[in-house]
Amino acid sequence: MKQDLDALMESAGLDALLVSGPATHNPAMFYFTGNVHVDPGDLIKLRGQAPVLFCNPMEREQAASTGLQTKNLAEYRYNDLLNQVGGDPLKATALRYQKMFADLGLESGRVAIYGLLDAAYSYEVFNMLQELMPEIEIVGEMRNPVLKLARETKDEDEVEHTRKMGAATVEVVGKTAAYLQSHKAKDGVLVKENGQPLTIGDVKTKINEWAIAAGVENPHGVIFAIGRDAGVPHNLGEPDDVLALGKTIVYDIFLQEPGGGYHFDFTRTWCLGYAPEKEQKLYDDVREVFDRLMTEEMEANMPFAALQDRTCELFEEQGHPTIRQDQMIQAGYVHSIGHGLGLDVHELPFARPSDAVLKPGVIVTIEPGLYYPDEGMGCRLEDTVFVHADGRMEVLAEYPLDLVLPIEEA
Amino acid sequence: MKQDLDALMESAGLDALLVSGPATHNPAMFYFTGNVHVDPGDLIKLRGQAPVLFCNPMEREQAASTGLQTKNLAEYRYNDLLNQVGGDPLKATALRYQKMFADLGLESGRVAIYGLLDAAYSYEVFNMLQELMPEIEIVGEMRNPVLKLARETKDEDEVEHTRKMGAATVEVVGKTAAYLQSHKAKDGVLVKENGQPLTIGDVKTKINEWAIAAGVENPHGVIFAIGRDAGVPHNLGEPDDVLALGKTIVYDIFLQEPGGGYHFDFTRTWCLGYAPEKEQKLYDDVREVFDRLMTEEMEANMPFAALQDRTCELFEEQGHPTIRQDQMIQAGYVHSIGHGLGLDVHELPFARPSDAVLKPGVIVTIEPGLYYPDEGMGCRLEDTVFVHADGRMEVLAEYPLDLVLPIEEA
Repeated sequence: MKQDLDALMESAGLDALLVSGPATHNPAMFYFTGNVHVDPGDLIKLRGQAPVLFCNPMEREQAASTGLQTKNLAEYRYNDLLNQVGGDPLKATALRYQKMFADLGLESGRVAIYGLLDAAYSYEVFNMLQELMPEIEIVGEMRNPVLKLARETKDEDEVEHTRKMGAATVEVVGKTAAYLQSHKAKDGVLVKENGQPLTIGDVKTKINEWAIAAGVENPHGVIFAIGRDAGVPHNLGEPDDVLALGKTIVYDIFLQEPGGGYHFDFTRTWCLGYAPEKEQKLYDDVREVFDRLMTEEMEANMPFAALQDRTCELFEEQGHPTIRQDQMIQAGYVHSIGHGLGLDVHELPFARPSDAVLKPGVIVTIEPGLYYPDEGMGCRLEDTVFVHADGRMEVLAEYPLDLVLPIEEA
Repeated sequence: MKQDLDALMESAGLDALLVSGPATHNPAMFYFTGNVHVDPGDLIKLRGQAPVLFCNPMEREQAASTGLQTKNLAEYRYNDLLNQVGGDPLKATALRYQKMFADLGLESGRVAIYGLLDAAYSYEVFNMLQELMPEIEIVGEMRNPVLKLARETKDEDEVEHTRKMGAATVEVVGKTAAYLQSHKAKDGVLVKENGQPLTIGDVKTKINEWAIAAGVENPHGVIFAIGRDAGVPHNLGEPDDVLALGKTIVYDIFLQEPGGGYHFDFTRTWCLGYAPEKEQKLYDDVREVFDRLMTEEMEANMPFAALQDRTCELFEEQGHPTIRQDQMIQAGYVHSIGHGLGLDVHELPFARPSDAVLKPGVIVTIEPGLYYPDEGMGCRLEDTVFVHADGRMEVLAEYPLDLVLPIEEA
């Protein structure tokens, strides 16, 4: 949680955090600013002190609305600095950082850098800054993920944001089911009033409209994939594919608050009209593992990787190949059991080999699935879960898990 | 243009480009892939050779749909590499890049890095890679902007994408005007059927709906700011503000193709019902400069910074303070005359001191404006212009420049 930042910085031996880039669609910056139009900005947080946001004067009011202490970037007179260093933008930018640090009283120590930035900017400007200021040490967060560790556990406000996104998500999912069921089947496919088959593209257009109506963003697209495509986990679905009865449809929706805020992540698998035996069996296997995980296997403070191991075991007991037997696998259980969820759609904790545990405060997805593209089917079920302080697991948005959506014949 | 890449790499002394991160909302990657769900990916282009896209096996079909040559990242067995280097993700990732380079036959030379990435990843992984492979030189693009230079000029396909975004934009703007004019005024503000005042939040909700209906994204928000807020260039407007008659409304809309594709950028200033003398004068001054720039001043191959200088001169002749007199200015003409537009909403060429010229193939905005927040007003007019090979300037979406939107009294 944000309140842990100073302690996390202390234990990582960090004296300052430097977060750069726009406020929106930039998780590290949004974490401090919320949804405001500041682009670009720099935020510096010294250990034990409140963060300070540096921005262009045109965006001073947006910056002030964050409630953060702000400073005017124009006061550093970039063009003068540029002249001073012979027109080299790297040197001028590094020099400006040096002056910004000095204004906050930072002249030495370890500084961790954050933000979604052009690779070249991070590589060249921060190497130049390191050269200019040998008295500081610039560190990344791949081995010192202080800000990501803080973000790994959520405070009440963040959970509430996620819950609201969950409510918006199941509202959209419910509308999707009703929309599909408002169509009738003819010759094994859903048809529109004009007699033409309903397509995945038609459904996705409606999903986008409902997302907008719910006041949320859909920046990553939605997975709505049928048959063979449902058997390829990240296949988004072919817009021109028709909605045939008796095929698995994997519907994975990951909406986000406006401006790049908190996410929700949710998957159901549907068969329109009926489920053939093979598809029903696939679903039953996934459902059995899903229920086992949710009711028995998952416990607060367990290693997340242990849950992945356990999921592989359960699928193997059913006779399915799993990714722990072969990293390159493309049929069976081929991915991870879940991931943390917040400002990033994938964030700490991860279920990969690591010391990540399901500690109180985390929000994680639980998403077992089975994929057999060559047999024209796939199935995944996914809920988003919050681990309470007392160890209780809360599914942040409830929605029926049923496979078959009954459809009327035309 | 993309076809210039090899020549640009040659003149910059680059042997390879390495582009990393997701395909969507990552301009450097989208430039090669278009709108597909590959996240994350790595693309390597050796000089004189076609680019190769490395992706996770789950996303192999999306990757293949780009038409690019693809390779399976899983073949590099990251977990084995991780074990091999004692669990250090930096070293494992750097080692994987080394193997990827080797597979393409790159063992030495200069490699430029691109992509919107976590600052820590760029700083630590690429420094580690540099250490691991002293025979290559990793360079950023702040001083070697090869990819950005290629993107500075647009090919026919890119211009057509931008034109379509322009058509979508003026369609949304036209709907916005009609929506405002469908309301009547009471006591100096627009009112809804229920008698309540129409607010900026109401209008923005409709703008988002129309954008979705037009099949485009609005990832950066829209500026719809009235009165004093219109006098602060990047103020987005207060959702609760009512739409009062006789105040300047700055409406700056910058929509984007789905997945983070090409942008359009467009601004009009409106007064509802009537324009008071002061607001009319403000508009007339901006309009005069806008028309002068579009019809007389702007020429193919002129330095873009010269157009900024000329704009300052014209505004100063009218008696307005300008940013060339004072970098810190917050009243008068306070920003730049325009910028290149493409996969980034601000990209090359820029009108700042530089050697950027309005060469054939560029798409730029032209957006003079005047801001007087303390007098409760601001005005900006902006069109997006393509410079043809023969020097002809094409406004990529035409729309009336009128200030006053007539409004009926209730």
